[in-house]
Amino acid sequence: MGIVYADNNATTAIAPDVYESMKPYLTDEYFNPSSMYGQSSGPAEAISTARTQVASLLNADTSEVFFTSCATESNNTALRGVAKANPQRNHIITTEVEHPAVREVCFEMEKDGYEVTYLSVDNEGRLDTSEFVRALRSDTLLVTIMHANNETGVIFPIEDLARITKETDPRIVFHSDATQSPGKLSLDLRHVFTHVDLLSLSGHKLHAPKGVGALYVREGTRIRPFMSGGHQEGGFRAGTENVPHIVGMGRACELALDQLTNEQDLSHLRDRLENGIEQRVPYVDVNGKNAPRLPNTLNIACHYVEGEGILYQLDDAGICVSSGSACTSGSLEPSHVLKAMGVPFTALHGSVRFSLSRYNTRDEVDYILEVFPDIIHNLRRLSPYWDERSNQPRSENAMST
Amino acid sequence: MGIVYADNNATTAIAPDVYESMKPYLTDEYFNPSSMYGQSSGPAEAISTARTQVASLLNADTSEVFFTSCATESNNTALRGVAKANPQRNHIITTEVEHPAVREVCFEMEKDGYEVTYLSVDNEGRLDTSEFVRALRSDTLLVTIMHANNETGVIFPIEDLARITKETDPRIVFHSDATQSPGKLSLDLRHVFTHVDLLSLSGHKLHAPKGVGALYVREGTRIRPFMSGGHQEGGFRAGTENVPHIVGMGRACELALDQLTNEQDLSHLRDRLENGIEQRVPYVDVNGKNAPRLPNTLNIACHYVEGEGILYQLDDAGICVSSGSACTSGSLEPSHVLKAMGVPFTALHGSVRFSLSRYNTRDEVDYILEVFPDIIHNLRRLSPYWDERSNQPRSENAMST
Repeated sequence: MGIVYADNNATTAIAPDVYESMKPYLTDEYFNPSSMYGQSSGPAEAISTARTQVASLLNADTSEVFFTSCATESNNTALRGVAKANPQRNHIITTEVEHPAVREVCFEMEKDGYEVTYLSVDNEGRLDTSEFVRALRSDTLLVTIMHANNETGVIFPIEDLARITKETDPRIVFHSDATQSPGKLSLDLRHVFTHVDLLSLSGHKLHAPKGVGALYVREGTRIRPFMSGGHQEGGFRAGTENVPHIVGMGRACELALDQLTNEQDLSHLRDRLENGIEQRVPYVDVNGKNAPRLPNTLNIACHYVEGEGILYQLDDAGICVSSGSACTSGSLEPSHVLKAMGVPFTALHGSVRFSLSRYNTRDEVDYILEVFPDIIHNLRRLSPYWDERSNQPRSENAMST
Repeated sequence: MGIVYADNNATTAIAPDVYESMKPYLTDEYFNPSSMYGQSSGPAEAISTARTQVASLLNADTSEVFFTSCATESNNTALRGVAKANPQRNHIITTEVEHPAVREVCFEMEKDGYEVTYLSVDNEGRLDTSEFVRALRSDTLLVTIMHANNETGVIFPIEDLARITKETDPRIVFHSDATQSPGKLSLDLRHVFTHVDLLSLSGHKLHAPKGVGALYVREGTRIRPFMSGGHQEGGFRAGTENVPHIVGMGRACELALDQLTNEQDLSHLRDRLENGIEQRVPYVDVNGKNAPRLPNTLNIACHYVEGEGILYQLDDAGICVSSGSACTSGSLEPSHVLKAMGVPFTALHGSVRFSLSRYNTRDEVDYILEVFPDIIHNLRRLSPYWDERSNQPRSENAMST
């Protein structure tokens, strides 16, 4: 067995078809799409095609799709751009479990004088709609709530939350970071997410390269640009267009749309992994088990072990997973998402995220199931909370709370 | 003769060596550089190598180099980041001839309450140092002055201007957009540009791909991040790293450093074009002729013709040039750079920029010299200011002012 890559919520392999589509723009078709000579029409038309492909994935109008350098930029643009365009309002609603690309912007905006409400989640990672309703205020500028959580895969009902927002006050802008959704969840902005104004996407989470993203902006949304400069992207995003990456992102969206029909396969594979681990390893909890979840994500809390230990042992076995969000790795702080869900102390540091893609196979899942139980068993032998002789936790009490 | 690409100040072809260096990161080495398993060390080390290559081009420390998505982002980061970090100061000094990626940020910051001084240039595009000295104030936050002008190639003495700035008040931050310099001018931040704090670079102007840039930040400079989110780039620039493009930019900087020794060749080629046009075409002025200029740039003001007409005719002949900055093309407004230089009315709309690269040949220059005079001659026959019979302007007066 070669490398088993099960960290697709951190980043994905570029699809061979995507790379193929990019090649001309990394070689002969290098012209600036804004130039006026004939040669520039190739890159310009390629961007236009990519915009159509992204719009199709979202069931949106091409005029509502803007390319950025990443989902982080899309999120910064959404929050800062709406704030700039609506200076009379000062309150933002978000959740405790957002990706740092939203969370850190909120922290920065608090320093700038904005007031931010962070909605809590329950043990399954779900929001409380009545808490949300109570949080809406007359000075609320923006609601920013992710679609599916990158760590747990838990899906928030953004269609309902957006509808409630608009029924309360149509001037409140509703943004969602949907970085984890394409290819896994349907994203129909015309018929389902009717009240979502802004939606962030990332290329590298859907088999396009790192360094490209998009922001959907519903027609009529009050927003101003984040970066100033040239007149690219209809004046909304300055900077010479990253043509190869934009082309790749377009193609990846096309593939993601096709992929949606195979969502069941991905979900079966994940369930096989989930059930297999639950059957083979004692004292594990699936984080967000009873909440609606992405079909590819399994976040598992292993009591009495350290997530980093698991990660290194899996790495030795050629299996790539994450012990938290890749963006916060390197830090010893436990995941803010799992903390918000009240994951108990004995498991907080022992959580591991498996995230699959269409490139994973049943053989790979079976290989994980072969090596994972032994890894956990061996690591627990090192834990002060574990009694090696009885192969049980030292005290059952240690597992509760 | 195939396509003659003479618009390298707008964008450049990706060097084959650069593309080769990127390929692994567009295929097998797709791992997230922030992940903790062994596979991620490939991309992480590749970024580190690229940072060393950029630092070498600048003669800077690797800790002073940050990757961004483009020079526009570098410029936005410089201006906004310095403003955030130094809220007690309110005045910015810049020039009338900056690229929109600085100019438009200044316009935005004026709306936000900052006061901006726009330094004028003379007929050759040069700054007046005494005007600069007079502009420095006790509340000056930032000086942002480009290194070499993208339209005319005119070089500003930023080493002197930065020194004067620091002698006046060491707390003023000095930024320069040096997008057009790499491979054409030496950029020694340790021994020459000793007082420059921030310097913006673009990948796609130096044979790396579009969608990557860098910002040099001298150690100790008071600046805060522009984009918030994950902890990439030492916490200074959030967003998963665009590994292939960063690798390409590093390699391109390495090639640019080698290329500096051949600067003479580029300059000879440009001079051949310049002298050839001056000999063959009457009523043309070289914009910035008597100022220090980039070795690759020729901006020529052709009286009694429209730049767009020239551009289209050259396009028909397979020659790609620009009639102004690519970023402002599509607009009928004459170039703000040429207006600031006082280019006379009869030539303002008839300016064309040739910008060469190491890939241009003497044969290509000779081909341009073969077709250009006829194009100008034929277009002038259509001008109301031109007398076809005498092959002269209708009135010599029309040429002055």
